[in-house]
Amino acid sequence: MRVLVTGAGGFIGATLLQLLQQVGQVGPQRITRLAAMDRTLPALPDSVERIEGELQDAQVQSRLAQFGADLCFHLAAVPGGAAEADPALSRRVNLDATLDLFNLLAEGRTRGSAAPVVVYASTIAVYGTPLPDPVTPGTPTRPALIYGAHKRACEILLADATRRGVLDGRSLRLPGIVARPRAASGLVSAFMSELLHALAAGESVTLPVGPQATAWWMSAQRCAENLLHAATMDPMLDTQGHMERTWALPVLRLSMQEVVDTLSALFGVDGHALARYAPQEPVEAVFGRYPVLDDRIARRLGLRDDGTAAELVQRALAPYAIQAANPNSSSV
Amino acid sequence: MRVLVTGAGGFIGATLLQLLQQVGQVGPQRITRLAAMDRTLPALPDSVERIEGELQDAQVQSRLAQFGADLCFHLAAVPGGAAEADPALSRRVNLDATLDLFNLLAEGRTRGSAAPVVVYASTIAVYGTPLPDPVTPGTPTRPALIYGAHKRACEILLADATRRGVLDGRSLRLPGIVARPRAASGLVSAFMSELLHALAAGESVTLPVGPQATAWWMSAQRCAENLLHAATMDPMLDTQGHMERTWALPVLRLSMQEVVDTLSALFGVDGHALARYAPQEPVEAVFGRYPVLDDRIARRLGLRDDGTAAELVQRALAPYAIQAANPNSSSV
Repeated sequence: MRVLVTGAGGFIGATLLQLLQQVGQVGPQRITRLAAMDRTLPALPDSVERIEGELQDAQVQSRLAQFGADLCFHLAAVPGGAAEADPALSRRVNLDATLDLFNLLAEGRTRGSAAPVVVYASTIAVYGTPLPDPVTPGTPTRPALIYGAHKRACEILLADATRRGVLDGRSLRLPGIVARPRAASGLVSAFMSELLHALAAGESVTLPVGPQATAWWMSAQRCAENLLHAATMDPMLDTQGHMERTWALPVLRLSMQEVVDTLSALFGVDGHALARYAPQEPVEAVFGRYPVLDDRIARRLGLRDDGTAAELVQRALAPYAIQAANPNSSSV
Repeated sequence: MRVLVTGAGGFIGATLLQLLQQVGQVGPQRITRLAAMDRTLPALPDSVERIEGELQDAQVQSRLAQFGADLCFHLAAVPGGAAEADPALSRRVNLDATLDLFNLLAEGRTRGSAAPVVVYASTIAVYGTPLPDPVTPGTPTRPALIYGAHKRACEILLADATRRGVLDGRSLRLPGIVARPRAASGLVSAFMSELLHALAAGESVTLPVGPQATAWWMSAQRCAENLLHAATMDPMLDTQGHMERTWALPVLRLSMQEVVDTLSALFGVDGHALARYAPQEPVEAVFGRYPVLDDRIARRLGLRDDGTAAELVQRALAPYAIQAANPNSSSV
């Protein structure tokens, strides 16, 4: 099985690429070739084929077509803030080049084989802000960023390609993922990752939301596992007989206070002293009032959250070789 | 005010173009220039500027940009069946060229003036088949044709351009419109128009659905009036504070039997003898079980159905100079 990961140089893509190398297979099928595509790629084992360049570049598209993936994890995208600052770039990458990729994957199908599987990294930004309460599989989408609008358009068109039988698409709506590297990412939501890093290191942190602010949490490792699972899971018919092709990932919904308590117990620090709250209403409105998510259908398909707050924190920090002082402490 | 109509050679576009010439203004604003764009255009008065060619053609796009519309009615599209037969063509016209048009309208904005208004002819095909029951403003879209998928994507991206303040978009989801010319259109839904033509002429007709089959009905004239109204109506905030930009048009939901009765009374014919029913299950499923439409919000904005079945029939047949024998007969 030939497997392609676009956006493989990114935070989540790199985690997924590593997971694929570790497990060596997708469901029962062995990975015979593995390709990583991104604008820039880090050093990679020789066994991973490198496709370096812009997704919208004709030469890159030609190399992607030549690779002829049986399974593509499509993560490459212009992120929300950059997309909003340059709508034309967002259209080129997040819409046009993404649809080009879908086309070339469909056209690259080997005669007689199944339609190529596309696992598409969509986003909870399709719902808009503030998030509707609750979020269910029937919640209308109202993207409030061009990033979310283009992602939603691609979800629809991937579902259509699936209906037409030329691709086998599975769109996962990803929440914010922790823990990003500490270097300033420019993302407003970076405070979620910073909270984990700071308290684990016994450092203070100031949060732009209050202690009761709720957010949806998932580690990069669990996210990668879900992307991999999505490649082989069997989408069910819903109660109306529709084959659903888009799911919000199950999440842990935790308050800042719960995460602080968990970090305090795991790392033996005084989180109440280290974590300071300077709530800013605009940040609270977008990142501090995550509602209940009805993710029962996604769970039934085998998609998973991190289990507990303690597992979330440990899984999120493991890539940084940060280990809890009291890994078995009971917490939230 | 410079007004552009794309798809002006089509059934609905031509009706709209005629209405614009008749009224000469949009709300309080006088139409100073009027342009008609389509692949092919009929003879038109000298006062109407002609832009003939494919929407995706660079020269056509350049002429559309030069025109610099303050208001664009965008009706040009590859219709459902043709789009399904050629997905790449649908992408070029119904998605790419439509987004190009949105861009060039936004870029053509005169400094200091309001964002150009775009009235976009979307479709009830965004809901998928069978239609969910009932259809409400919150009904999730599940297009079952690439035509509907591309229309839905453009609704989303027009709403996003509106959010960004570069356009003032209003998407109307059009139902099937009557009465198309009798010449074979290739549309399965043509039987709805044929029923009107045949009974008005005292001819027999065989319908592929049963007498109790319900459909959504609207005349081309009323549809054009709604498109015009949409250009100046004031979109309201919904109960969640969202500015809605997409509406299904209000419709008359009538059974075949009701339409036959209406035609019988208006034209003094024996509709029960002339209309024969040979229901085909696949046609019934798609065109014979239109559910209740919750169109209260659209009505509050001033969008309208045809009033009564008798008004619908007379308005639909008026362009063919077909007049009822008993215009004031009471009917449904």
